[in-house]
Amino acid sequence: MNRNKTVTAGMIVIGDEILSGRTRDANLNHLAHWLTEQGIQLREARVIADDGDVIVDTVNELRARYDYLFTTGGIGPTHDDITSENIARALGVPFVQNPEAYDVLKDHYGPDGLTEARLRMAMMPEGAELIDNPISRAPGIHIGNIFVLAGIPVVMQAMLLDVSKKIEGGDKMISRTIHVFRGESFFADLLGQVNDVFEEVSIGSYPFYYEQAYGATFVLRSQDEVALDEALGMLKHKIVDDGYECHDGEPAFKSRPVD
Amino acid sequence: MNRNKTVTAGMIVIGDEILSGRTRDANLNHLAHWLTEQGIQLREARVIADDGDVIVDTVNELRARYDYLFTTGGIGPTHDDITSENIARALGVPFVQNPEAYDVLKDHYGPDGLTEARLRMAMMPEGAELIDNPISRAPGIHIGNIFVLAGIPVVMQAMLLDVSKKIEGGDKMISRTIHVFRGESFFADLLGQVNDVFEEVSIGSYPFYYEQAYGATFVLRSQDEVALDEALGMLKHKIVDDGYECHDGEPAFKSRPVD
Repeated sequence: MNRNKTVTAGMIVIGDEILSGRTRDANLNHLAHWLTEQGIQLREARVIADDGDVIVDTVNELRARYDYLFTTGGIGPTHDDITSENIARALGVPFVQNPEAYDVLKDHYGPDGLTEARLRMAMMPEGAELIDNPISRAPGIHIGNIFVLAGIPVVMQAMLLDVSKKIEGGDKMISRTIHVFRGESFFADLLGQVNDVFEEVSIGSYPFYYEQAYGATFVLRSQDEVALDEALGMLKHKIVDDGYECHDGEPAFKSRPVD
Repeated sequence: MNRNKTVTAGMIVIGDEILSGRTRDANLNHLAHWLTEQGIQLREARVIADDGDVIVDTVNELRARYDYLFTTGGIGPTHDDITSENIARALGVPFVQNPEAYDVLKDHYGPDGLTEARLRMAMMPEGAELIDNPISRAPGIHIGNIFVLAGIPVVMQAMLLDVSKKIEGGDKMISRTIHVFRGESFFADLLGQVNDVFEEVSIGSYPFYYEQAYGATFVLRSQDEVALDEALGMLKHKIVDDGYECHDGEPAFKSRPVD
């Protein structure tokens, strides 16, 4: 039997502005995509408030449960940026000025521009390693299995370039997608049958409505490509046998909004 | 002293497709906004996989912690729609055919269209009350302090019309917004000072970069409007005193994407 290597991750989105609805989070979808490409399975994401105790508890729960933990948000220079100090609290290590981070900020802002507020961004849990920020310089933090990233999407995305050097993925989840122009309930039995035969393949059914078109997209996912293609073959065969048409890939309007 | 009535909520987004990055969740932002308008504070949102045990544990944790719990996703007719049965498991009640839901589906699909797959959508925890779905009819579920909503954004949003009749909000969080065209680190001290004086007001600082413009938006939030406006006055005064310009509201490009 072919055993697959599975690597997991959790994510914490930190910020009152997401929970109040002011800001639409863009980091979860980007990180989810990126992790899938790295062969890492994102198992859970939590959006929490700017509250120190909540950050500490959530970090400790998720860093124990998954191979990697990613946080976004709360590492800027103002009073509401409390992620770094609470990562230190969660780990039980001192919160100290990081000499390398100090040098990066001094280099960027110049000795005169290194205000007290900006120096807050050099404060990190003891033992932290920097994550390079090619956009606005103030670095992210890597400590243990935790990666502390910025909340601003363009900065967070740029930090992943450096993160990719510090992580090791497992076997990738491979996926196959087909769609039909008929309601998903017509295919519920077929999907259940294929699902029962191939337990290493997960099958998702996602209905769509778009202008005049409606139907469902079926996504099959597995680390085992052979099983995946067998499951796909069985499903397509059953769909056609039942007298329906079956199309490869996502529907053409997939990239346009459905809400 | 004026005591404010605070009503809280948690949210669970259920779906492998969000965690794999295939689908970009749109329900969190919409619900967050809507809850704020109802005077309900969304304290936490979790995105979890289509996994029965995870659903049960998460539902039981969050329904105990918050006044209301909302779930989205996983209530359709196919094998991967497992939310309803796991809500029943979480509550320890039988999972049964709901006569009212049966009537709604029979009325919609006609007696001949009521296939086994579609009948799954009439299965609910015993004692459930329906949430009206004016779009595609298959109802949501209200039981205890839990509201089980569809995952498709247009359906989920339409269900909120009925949900609004079944909930009671508290005192609304009121917000005031200003912005400056200078990096937030220049204002870190001022923000901290205002924050220290008005502990019932939360102050968020959100940097923006947009084409040639950069700066920061400051959002003040409180249930206490008098304190809110005093805090706003103090902050604006300090900003101007320090020689900066201060503008009301969000920057004009706020509604355009910043990533």
